[in-house]
Amino acid sequence: MVIKVGILGFGGLGQAALKLLSTKQEMLCVALADQKGYVYASQGIDVNKAIATYQAKGSVGYLESGVLSDQSIKALISNPNHNVSGYFLALPNLPNTFMASVAKEFISSGWQGVLVDAIKRTSAVEQLIGLSEDLKASGITYLTGCGATPGLLTAAAAIAAQSFAEVHKVEIQFGVGIANWSAYRATIREDIAHMPGYTVDIAQAMTDAEVEALLDKTNGLITLEHMEHADDILLERLGICSRDRVTVGGVVDTRNPKKPLSTNMKLTGRTFEGKISTHTFTLGDETSMAANVCGTAFGYLKAAQAFHQKSIHGLFTSAEVMPLFVQ
Amino acid sequence: MVIKVGILGFGGLGQAALKLLSTKQEMLCVALADQKGYVYASQGIDVNKAIATYQAKGSVGYLESGVLSDQSIKALISNPNHNVSGYFLALPNLPNTFMASVAKEFISSGWQGVLVDAIKRTSAVEQLIGLSEDLKASGITYLTGCGATPGLLTAAAAIAAQSFAEVHKVEIQFGVGIANWSAYRATIREDIAHMPGYTVDIAQAMTDAEVEALLDKTNGLITLEHMEHADDILLERLGICSRDRVTVGGVVDTRNPKKPLSTNMKLTGRTFEGKISTHTFTLGDETSMAANVCGTAFGYLKAAQAFHQKSIHGLFTSAEVMPLFVQ
Repeated sequence: MVIKVGILGFGGLGQAALKLLSTKQEMLCVALADQKGYVYASQGIDVNKAIATYQAKGSVGYLESGVLSDQSIKALISNPNHNVSGYFLALPNLPNTFMASVAKEFISSGWQGVLVDAIKRTSAVEQLIGLSEDLKASGITYLTGCGATPGLLTAAAAIAAQSFAEVHKVEIQFGVGIANWSAYRATIREDIAHMPGYTVDIAQAMTDAEVEALLDKTNGLITLEHMEHADDILLERLGICSRDRVTVGGVVDTRNPKKPLSTNMKLTGRTFEGKISTHTFTLGDETSMAANVCGTAFGYLKAAQAFHQKSIHGLFTSAEVMPLFVQ
Repeated sequence: MVIKVGILGFGGLGQAALKLLSTKQEMLCVALADQKGYVYASQGIDVNKAIATYQAKGSVGYLESGVLSDQSIKALISNPNHNVSGYFLALPNLPNTFMASVAKEFISSGWQGVLVDAIKRTSAVEQLIGLSEDLKASGITYLTGCGATPGLLTAAAAIAAQSFAEVHKVEIQFGVGIANWSAYRATIREDIAHMPGYTVDIAQAMTDAEVEALLDKTNGLITLEHMEHADDILLERLGICSRDRVTVGGVVDTRNPKKPLSTNMKLTGRTFEGKISTHTFTLGDETSMAANVCGTAFGYLKAAQAFHQKSIHGLFTSAEVMPLFVQ
């Protein structure tokens, strides 16, 4: 059975998600929405046309069967003729209330199915946790934090914790290399917002020229420490460790596709026999952010679909559900 | 809510499992069975007394409230006055049909709850998969392959696979160091059965003196390649890769608690962008086999319990369910 999937958001992440889906037999992308429009095609969406149209005109709403709308998400999801089993919310993390507001749109639309996000911030996940009962009552299975971190690496931490009686610290360090930051305008601003002296509002208000000027000063590198990343709340929620024991940091090179360091998760704890030890999960450098985020997101979407078929609804996280491999 | 747990089998693995459980607040061990007897104690079993009695007399049936029986498992599990939510089957892997025969005992007993094993061989897991429908009909949630490998490392492979469009190979290499093999008589014979020129029957028939003589020749090391390990079928079952792409090997040092190599899982694949890369999960050397196997087994038991409470019954594996952290 092919799962009919929609992608909300069509920036760098959404476009990568569509490309990835086009290689899968078990999933078919039938719906896309960006800020200015949407497209629904029950037989599947042509990847090249969608990306070319978006890049040329600024919205998939300009596609042949597309619709231009400043309420694109609402219009797409509330149409009862649209047959979509699950959506990947490849939406910007900013503003911080955006993901929860989209979840509320789904709740009030009457649509039932599965939702997956690749959200980053702790405070954004907290808002979704607050919607848990509403999601359940609406027959929606929502899996949050399903990108790379939180997501792939949080799941690895939940696995690694199994050897320990007590977890002392979880350290996540990511390396990202991108050839050209302008393909990831929203993501880079989200990263800048984590830098000392910057906030979400400041980063979001920066012009492209201001971002360029900042990156010139740092030789294209964004170094991040003690980021507000939802890995902490996901692990705390499961009793693995308190959130202050989880640290996330990384280095983003905006001028080189080679990663400045290998992305890794280190979990240190004490075994029931009293030994202190560290398990390590290291990602191969050749896997891109797109592969690590989108691959994981659809693996969780498949897992969410299996839950939904068993009538298990509500909010779950990447640390408590095993992602399934999508062929 | 404290989960009342039983342990079947009380060799090295069962004893380690009991010690580990005694440190947990969320689980209480109320039942033990070995070949010659069993004990049930609704308020919990005293670790030290149980181990001392077993070591002195050869069975927990000699404990104050114990019962001697050559049908110990059957007698324990079929007694309707015994309130046990889940059992860890810490049983020898040999004979190869043993785990499935115990599963059948549970099916015919009328007991409902969760079962977890730390089984190793592919052929043994195949027998359990054959019982899937019977387990489901009996209201049992059975999680198989929940030790270290298969188990912890298979789960890590299922996570690692998420970055890839196609998985080329999964290589698991374990290092085990034990100070004194006689504490793990059954496990060591299982390992010997994987050595070239040996079979399950030959290994099982070996006297302790014969095992000693073999280990003298190898300086205490057992080197294993291309072992029949169920990691292969667990990953194949989920469509991650065909079983021939999964290899398991390792080195067991029977005379030194220090591991001869760091246990690790390497997964190599191709991303949707066409890049070949390898993710690596490495266990800290200070975590013992007991910590990695028993910690994981109870993490899956907790996950199985959550499934059971949602009326999800049948057979599942460590590669498709996320273990939950037991506090």
